[in-house]
Amino acid sequence: MYKLFKNVNLDNTLTDILVKDNIIQKIAPGQSVPEAEVFDANAMIIIPSFANAHTHAAMTLMRGYADDLELFDWLSNYIWPLEAKLTEDDVYWAARLACLEMIKCGTTCFNDMYWHCQETARAAEDAGIRAVISQVFIDHNDAKESQRQIAKAEEFLAKHADTERVKYALGPHAIYTVSHESLRWIAEYSHKHNRLVHIHIAETKKEVADSLEKFGLTPVEYLASLNLINKNSLLAHCVWLTDNEARLISEAGATVLHNPVSNLKLASGYFPYELLKKHNVRIAIGTDGCSSNNNLSSLEEMKFAALLPKYIEMNPQTYPAEEVFRDATKSAFDALQIDAGEIKEGKLADFVLINNNSVFLTPNYNIISDLVYSADSSVVDTVVCNGKIIMNRGVVADEEIIVNKVKEIRNNLLKR
Amino acid sequence: MYKLFKNVNLDNTLTDILVKDNIIQKIAPGQSVPEAEVFDANAMIIIPSFANAHTHAAMTLMRGYADDLELFDWLSNYIWPLEAKLTEDDVYWAARLACLEMIKCGTTCFNDMYWHCQETARAAEDAGIRAVISQVFIDHNDAKESQRQIAKAEEFLAKHADTERVKYALGPHAIYTVSHESLRWIAEYSHKHNRLVHIHIAETKKEVADSLEKFGLTPVEYLASLNLINKNSLLAHCVWLTDNEARLISEAGATVLHNPVSNLKLASGYFPYELLKKHNVRIAIGTDGCSSNNNLSSLEEMKFAALLPKYIEMNPQTYPAEEVFRDATKSAFDALQIDAGEIKEGKLADFVLINNNSVFLTPNYNIISDLVYSADSSVVDTVVCNGKIIMNRGVVADEEIIVNKVKEIRNNLLKR
Repeated sequence: MYKLFKNVNLDNTLTDILVKDNIIQKIAPGQSVPEAEVFDANAMIIIPSFANAHTHAAMTLMRGYADDLELFDWLSNYIWPLEAKLTEDDVYWAARLACLEMIKCGTTCFNDMYWHCQETARAAEDAGIRAVISQVFIDHNDAKESQRQIAKAEEFLAKHADTERVKYALGPHAIYTVSHESLRWIAEYSHKHNRLVHIHIAETKKEVADSLEKFGLTPVEYLASLNLINKNSLLAHCVWLTDNEARLISEAGATVLHNPVSNLKLASGYFPYELLKKHNVRIAIGTDGCSSNNNLSSLEEMKFAALLPKYIEMNPQTYPAEEVFRDATKSAFDALQIDAGEIKEGKLADFVLINNNSVFLTPNYNIISDLVYSADSSVVDTVVCNGKIIMNRGVVADEEIIVNKVKEIRNNLLKR
Repeated sequence: MYKLFKNVNLDNTLTDILVKDNIIQKIAPGQSVPEAEVFDANAMIIIPSFANAHTHAAMTLMRGYADDLELFDWLSNYIWPLEAKLTEDDVYWAARLACLEMIKCGTTCFNDMYWHCQETARAAEDAGIRAVISQVFIDHNDAKESQRQIAKAEEFLAKHADTERVKYALGPHAIYTVSHESLRWIAEYSHKHNRLVHIHIAETKKEVADSLEKFGLTPVEYLASLNLINKNSLLAHCVWLTDNEARLISEAGATVLHNPVSNLKLASGYFPYELLKKHNVRIAIGTDGCSSNNNLSSLEEMKFAALLPKYIEMNPQTYPAEEVFRDATKSAFDALQIDAGEIKEGKLADFVLINNNSVFLTPNYNIISDLVYSADSSVVDTVVCNGKIIMNRGVVADEEIIVNKVKEIRNNLLKR
């Protein structure tokens, strides 16, 4: 099946993009393919879509529920009690809302860790976007719970095969919530089955202190000792890193998932951009969940990612826009081992058409600069994922249904 | 002339807002006023509009023109050469673009300092929004130039009377570009004619060091010694303040204009939120110009304002959303001595209707939290300034004309 996107502006040149099934087959001006469905882009700018490298999609349900609170109060009195009440149906609709929001921000893929994760997977399938899905693995360092969780993970992964757009990863929550034994099993399973491993690591100062005390190693060194630092490692946060840890991550070809807004909102600490740059570590940008952000916009996240290191290093040249944009697109897809994030022949057809008459992009000297520093979701016109148009000139299917359903769930949730 | 906004959601209650001419006359449900023009808000949320407390509107023309550069390179090789080429017509259209962008972000007032400022005033008049306009006053500490600038300012202010929506202020650029003599004249003029004074102050560490060396005083102390710290003082930036300076500002009832994105992008330093809070200083939030931001969205600016102090103080309770929202609305209007920024009977009719079906506001536990931490311009449906609808269900007059005109100017500007 062919789709021909006529008159797209690619790097300031008008051209046509021919998509065959889910692949960008040919980029050339003046194409005419009789059997193709034609979409006239009318000189709109084409960019690769974003991949949200770290999130908890269903937490849209907690957007604005409990802000400006002390961390422990926030978790114990607000987030955990609400999460305890969530049903599979709640997670499905909250994840649909997240997919809808991400599509509207030009995102076609997200890396997720949450409860009832098969519902998040179903939401991604129904929304037409890609997802890497991890079931949360927590055993609280309890031997019996470790066995239970291992059995549960094994069963889950045996039962849920990867699909064209959804694949499953292992999701150990963190080194302080998952035992040594479980992490060892996860490492072995990941190697044997070539599975991505998604973990929160080195997020707070306390985590580092506890790791040093308990294991005599910093968090990333501890993961490395368990054979969990390698090309399949998706390391969320990495706020508190030593030089040696950055070197370990780089040499192993692992990826740091950077969530600048969450780091600010939870007051986690300063992301060590210069250290990672020095060691040439791959950074992929994510939004984290809605309770610590409170949106899922990669556009906004890029601005935070770009600006904070400038201020910290007192150098306005630090983390320039081109690099930030790459880390929200190609680097994120590379980390998730999905062949997208660039507009090139042979790549998966995941891309965004940008309304270049937007005030936020006027006068438009440099589209990357404009997207990183100025744009918001209003610039996104059309979104294509896996060769299918999932947002068509501003319209995403089922928007009203999803919004109303989530509001209804919220009302019921507060009463439960 | 009456306008009746039926079925607005004000603080979670449905009511009607009757506007007479430019004033909110009555807030009550079930109003029926035969002579009123009716606007059915269909349960949309009403909020006060934003006032952008510090900007250089016409710098939209430099949006994305020169990012990620070292400060001196940026100014000398990019911004100043381009500014030198600007005509009055360029400034008018660039300021129209700024007004358009601000309206789309729910802003109905801005405090501006720029060259050819009468053109910015004209743009605000034509766009239907409010502005406080200052001509840039720079004499480079030259006695002759001081006299010339004083004469120029006096002539300008005599010639341009305040109108219903536009008023004129004095705009000494900074203490390092304006001589002692000129600042003394500005203080006298401001007192005699009760004019606002808009100045960049304590923006960089170097400015403080130079001030101490030259005057034996910190920047705000120096202004205070010139009688320039009072209720008419609009103090942009104030990044580097001592305890004594915060006290001086507070006691005088002056206002600090806070531009968090610009502070980050130009790596100016950390805004001393806790110090200002301790002294109960009024803070008003602004975006600064597009070359150091690169947009004019008060919605986005609020998020940066709210998050950075949390991270710096390592306390997620710092600068909560309600306070941030107040500083982008009421505090900013108060500072500019305009009776708006609240939805109350007797206030000027400046307000915004928010699309409460937006994904960014779903499920909507707390509208202020949602606006500060999640919303972008896509949530703004309708904007009213001075009793007139200037954005009507997403539509602002002349949008296409303005965008095309600014693109045309950009093309010509690069050729000049």
